[in-house]
Amino acid sequence: MTPEQMLDVAVAEARKGLAEGGIPIGAALFRADGELLGAGHNRRVQNDDPSVHAETDAFRAAGRQRGYGSTIMVTTLSPCWYCSGLVRQFGIGAVVIGEARTFHGGHDWLAEHGVAVTVLDDERCVAMMKEFIAASPELWAEDIGE
Amino acid sequence: MTPEQMLDVAVAEARKGLAEGGIPIGAALFRADGELLGAGHNRRVQNDDPSVHAETDAFRAAGRQRGYGSTIMVTTLSPCWYCSGLVRQFGIGAVVIGEARTFHGGHDWLAEHGVAVTVLDDERCVAMMKEFIAASPELWAEDIGE
Repeated sequence: MTPEQMLDVAVAEARKGLAEGGIPIGAALFRADGELLGAGHNRRVQNDDPSVHAETDAFRAAGRQRGYGSTIMVTTLSPCWYCSGLVRQFGIGAVVIGEARTFHGGHDWLAEHGVAVTVLDDERCVAMMKEFIAASPELWAEDIGE
Repeated sequence: MTPEQMLDVAVAEARKGLAEGGIPIGAALFRADGELLGAGHNRRVQNDDPSVHAETDAFRAAGRQRGYGSTIMVTTLSPCWYCSGLVRQFGIGAVVIGEARTFHGGHDWLAEHGVAVTVLDDERCVAMMKEFIAASPELWAEDIGE
């Protein structure tokens, strides 16, 4: 499975979130062999829950795992500090990022700490976030604590 | 309300978690004036959910807030990278920590980034974690991704 194919799963999650009236960020956790462990999307609006960023939703959906070193977290957007901390604490080995243009989170920090980081700079992801931020600037600011 | 009084709330949460058969770490989010916004505890075992560390549970219980600069996160144990990332991303202004002897998380990093960090070195917290780690070393390793 290529990083681009993995990203497709995260993009589908982001679109699901958007269709639900939520913040369009999706994520998925894969095993190195391409097996999908869990996928999810931001649920701040849908669940009225500020703690469920997309990466946390995917991590939760994967259930309790013993060892994340060979897993890959795929996310439509550069992970914020909360989600970057998730990756670092649990030793997730690699992160594939849709785009880091509309928001630059902690992925440089992850790379410094040995995580394999790939930024795909995917136009679908950029367009989706640009449209969302333009339409709902306050909701976006709330989601990243600004 | 003193930091010690705030810690009592987090300790009560940790004990609740222990009584439920869970990992004994508790947390609470307060407003600077002492108002309790939310409290919670680690729910890995109880909910079979690896994403619910105590700080996340307290943050979630506080619901959607607009601005965390004047809030205080109180936790029985030094926050791991995931929970430290939560504090940094949402701009939580202060962290009060029960102890950092049995686990040293990201609180120095938070202090470097302007968070007011207080470590109380509370004997109850140290004893609770020491007993838990001695009794359930594998569960503890799972919870911190080791």
